[in-house]
Amino acid sequence: MFTLDSRLQHDTVPLGSFPLSLLLLMNDHSYPWLILVPQRPGIREIFELTPADRRQLLDESCHLAETLTALFSPDKLNIAALGNVVPQLHLHHVVRYRTDPAWPAPVWGKAPAVPYRPEQMTALRSRLLPHLNQFIAAAD
Amino acid sequence: MFTLDSRLQHDTVPLGSFPLSLLLLMNDHSYPWLILVPQRPGIREIFELTPADRRQLLDESCHLAETLTALFSPDKLNIAALGNVVPQLHLHHVVRYRTDPAWPAPVWGKAPAVPYRPEQMTALRSRLLPHLNQFIAAAD
Repeated sequence: MFTLDSRLQHDTVPLGSFPLSLLLLMNDHSYPWLILVPQRPGIREIFELTPADRRQLLDESCHLAETLTALFSPDKLNIAALGNVVPQLHLHHVVRYRTDPAWPAPVWGKAPAVPYRPEQMTALRSRLLPHLNQFIAAAD
Repeated sequence: MFTLDSRLQHDTVPLGSFPLSLLLLMNDHSYPWLILVPQRPGIREIFELTPADRRQLLDESCHLAETLTALFSPDKLNIAALGNVVPQLHLHHVVRYRTDPAWPAPVWGKAPAVPYRPEQMTALRSRLLPHLNQFIAAAD
């Protein structure tokens, strides 16, 4: 049975799910930073998914990336499956700007997270979620 | 026409190509670190590829990741499309160990690159390349 890793649970807010992946928002207002977690138990690397699940993850990732680009006009997206601290497969999608606190370095371990205020969280949800297809929003 | 970014050219050694992507070796002996660059002009993000090219990149990435896992038994793979410095789409595949110089942080910007000596490069080529399907090795 799939269970979300406790560290991911602690650092993020669940927004809902695509057919394969949970969509989590990293609770760091410094960057629009979304994470996809395929709901499959025991998977650490993308290649360990079945070919059908790999493609579904690719489709969900590209749909999310395209939506983030349309809404936030990033200077660059950073998409990464790292997992040195949390080995459960999760795919980061970070909207990057030349003016952000870590640019041009990667965001991991650079600056302490700045948690969202409730009204900022509501604003982000209502800006992002209506644009996601095949997406089921989590209960607030 | 596709041309490899000059910074990538400077920092890596070309090993050859898959049907879609060039395979480059980062010239840093600290980590087995391979990079796939889809040979398509003007592409910065994975979602900008055609659906067929996206899937081909996924297949090439998974094949490479599986081969690296079989040969090097990493503690974790790090797979990432960042591009803050070099926006031309390129997909990092880094073999990570708990004992490596950057663990558990990401490798980018952590420690100066340690260039391969010629015999180390030859050893890596002959260890890796025979295991890659549909791969055409570059001339030495």
